Amino acid sequence: MKKLQRAAAREGLEGVVLAPGPNIRYYTNVQSQILERPFLLFVPREGRANLVAPNLEAGPYTRSPVEIEIHAWDDSSGPTAAFAALRKDVRLEGRWGCEGRVPFGYLTRIFDKKLALEPADGLLETIRETKDPGEIALLKKAAKILGEAYLKVPEIAKPGMSEQQVAKALREEIFANGGETVDFCSVQAGKNAADPHWAPSLAKLGKNEEFLIDTCCTVSGYSADITRTFVLGKNEQVEGVYGDVLEAQKAAVGMVRPGATTGEVDAAARRILEAHGRGEEFFHRTGHGLGLDIHEEPYIVSGGRKKLRPGMVFTVEPGAYVAGKFGVRIEDDVVVTASGVDVITGMVPKEYGWWK
Amino acid sequence: MKKLQRAAAREGLEGVVLAPGPNIRYYTNVQSQILERPFLLFVPREGRANLVAPNLEAGPYTRSPVEIEIHAWDDSSGPTAAFAALRKDVRLEGRWGCEGRVPFGYLTRIFDKKLALEPADGLLETIRETKDPGEIALLKKAAKILGEAYLKVPEIAKPGMSEQQVAKALREEIFANGGETVDFCSVQAGKNAADPHWAPSLAKLGKNEEFLIDTCCTVSGYSADITRTFVLGKNEQVEGVYGDVLEAQKAAVGMVRPGATTGEVDAAARRILEAHGRGEEFFHRTGHGLGLDIHEEPYIVSGGRKKLRPGMVFTVEPGAYVAGKFGVRIEDDVVVTASGVDVITGMVPKEYGWWK
Repeated sequence: MKKLQRAAAREGLEGVVLAPGPNIRYYTNVQSQILERPFLLFVPREGRANLVAPNLEAGPYTRSPVEIEIHAWDDSSGPTAAFAALRKDVRLEGRWGCEGRVPFGYLTRIFDKKLALEPADGLLETIRETKDPGEIALLKKAAKILGEAYLKVPEIAKPGMSEQQVAKALREEIFANGGETVDFCSVQAGKNAADPHWAPSLAKLGKNEEFLIDTCCTVSGYSADITRTFVLGKNEQVEGVYGDVLEAQKAAVGMVRPGATTGEVDAAARRILEAHGRGEEFFHRTGHGLGLDIHEEPYIVSGGRKKLRPGMVFTVEPGAYVAGKFGVRIEDDVVVTASGVDVITGMVPKEYGWWK
Repeated sequence: MKKLQRAAAREGLEGVVLAPGPNIRYYTNVQSQILERPFLLFVPREGRANLVAPNLEAGPYTRSPVEIEIHAWDDSSGPTAAFAALRKDVRLEGRWGCEGRVPFGYLTRIFDKKLALEPADGLLETIRETKDPGEIALLKKAAKILGEAYLKVPEIAKPGMSEQQVAKALREEIFANGGETVDFCSVQAGKNAADPHWAPSLAKLGKNEEFLIDTCCTVSGYSADITRTFVLGKNEQVEGVYGDVLEAQKAAVGMVRPGATTGEVDAAARRILEAHGRGEEFFHRTGHGLGLDIHEEPYIVSGGRKKLRPGMVFTVEPGAYVAGKFGVRIEDDVVVTASGVDVITGMVPKEYGWWK
C-alpha cells in the first residue's frame, strides 16, 4: 500500500481509485469481484485507504492486514450515504487516478463532473508486473496443477466426443489436482480453432482433425494458462503448420532474458512465422503477463519497448489460424530469472505427436 | 435490436453503448466478456449496430443473426484506427446512453470529454427483465441441473471435509449434470457463514455445526442460483434460526404474483424476521433477477415499487447472520406466471433436516 501511495505522489496524484478484482486483492489480501453494487477502494496518497462497499462484502476487509476505513452500505438505503461519509474522510479534489476496470455505472453514482479522473493503469501495472518469491511459488503451483491435467488429455479426448465433454472432463481433472477456479476452458475442434475465441460447443472432435485446448486455473488467486494443439490421427497439413508454430514458440522463449524487450520476444516468434509465409495467420500478440489477473503487464506485443526484468511472469503463445479450416497455438508460462528463463509449464510436452 | 433502438429513441438518445457481457449476448446471440482489450457495441437509434472489438473476438459476430458493422483491431496497432473508422459510420454526438458495466479504461480510449454519456441501465434492464418462453425453458433447465446437484450434498458433505473439498465435489456434480459454467461455488462452514461472502477456504465442516452452500450454474448463458443451509448432526440454536428464515422465505414466495411489488415481496420476508427479533440479522435484499446475468432486474428490495409481471424470474433468498457465530440462508428461483408463481428450484427440499 505504501508503494502505491509513493507512486501516486510521484505522479502528482491526490490518490487512486481501485475496482474490485486483482488490484484490491493485491493491496488488501481480500478477494472481490465487480458486480452490480458500487464497490471502490480509495487510496489517498497519505493516510489510510477508504473502502465503499456493499455490507455483504465488507466483512473480510475488517480482517485485512492493512488498516482500512470502511463505509459499508446496504440494499435498503443504497450507497449515497456511504459516499457522503467517504467525502468527509477523503478529499476528493484535484487529480485522482482511476483504475481502468472501474465501471462507468459506479462512477456516475459517486462523482460530479468536476473531478477529472485520469487513467492510472500504467502506475498500477508497474507495481504488480514483477513478482516476489512468494508470488512465483504460487504461480508455479498453479502451473503444476494445470500442467498435470494436460498430461491426461490423451486419455480423455477421443474422436466423437464434443468440445463440451472434453472441457468438462478437463475441468474435473484440474479441480481434482487442487485448482481453485477455472475461468475458461476452451476446447476447439477442427475449423472452430480458426477463431481464437473460447466457448466450447457441441461440435465433435474428428478423426485426423486437430483440436486446440486453452485453459487456465488459479491457486490463491494466481493464474496458470496453457494451450496445446492435438491431432487425433494423422493430418499432414496441420503437422506442417504445427512445426512452424512450435519453431516460433521456441524462438520466442529463447529470447527471454533480463534486458530483452517485450517487442524482441514478440518479433522472435513473428519473424519465423513470416518466414514460413504465415505472418497474416498470426494476428495476435505473443503473450501476456500472469499474476492475480490472467491478462496483465507485461504484454508481449509487436514493437513493445518494455525491458524484461527478473520476476516478470508471462505467457509465450504464438499461433497460426488458417481461415475456415483450423488453428494451431502453443502456449507456455515463463518466469524471467536473473540469468534467463524458467519455463514453468515445461512438464507438458510440445513436440508434435507427444500425445500418442 | 429494434426494441432497443425504439427505447433509445423514446428517451431522446442518439444511441446506446454496450459492454461485453449479457447485453451484447442478448442482442447479438454472441457471448463475450470484459477483458483488457477495448470492446464495445454502439447501437445508434437508427441503422445497423457497430462493433469495435479485438480481432480475436470479432469472428463470431460475422455469424450473428443481426447484421453488425465490425471494426476489428489487432494487438500490434491497437484500437485507435478502429475507433476512427467507427466515427465515420456512427455520429458520436449529442446524448448517448452507456451501459453501467463499461469500464472507465475503455471510455478514456474512445471519447473526448465533449460527449456526455448518460447511464442507460434503466432502459436496458427494462427490456431484459421479462423473459420469453424460450428463455424460461433455459432457466428451468439450469435450475434442474443445479437442483439435482444439491440433492447429492447429503452424500458429499461429511464432518472434517474442507469447504474447498465440498465445493470441488459439488462443482463436479454440476458439470456432470450438464452445467456449462459455475461462476461461484460458496461453501461456508460454521462462523464463516456469518459473512455473506463467497470464497471457500480450508476451514472444515464441524459435527453439530451448520454449513451454507450458495452456488450457481448456466446453460446457454442462462443462470440458476440456489442456497441451502445444512446441519451435520444436531444444533438447536441453528434450528431455531432456520425455522424463522424458512418461514420468511415461504412468506415471500407466497407474495409473488402479477401486480405485487418487489417491495411487498421483500417486506413479506423482512416482517417475519423482524417479528422474530432478527431484523438486524437480515441485512441484504430478498432477491435479484436471473437471466443472462446472474444479478439483474428485478431486484427484490425494501421499498421497491416495481410491479411484478408474468415472465419475471428472480431469486427469493432471505437470511439471518448471527455475527461471529453462524448464518442461515435459503434461496429458491421463481417465475412469475399469469396467475401466481412457479418455484423452479422446488425439487430441492427446504424443511429442516431433509438432508438426514
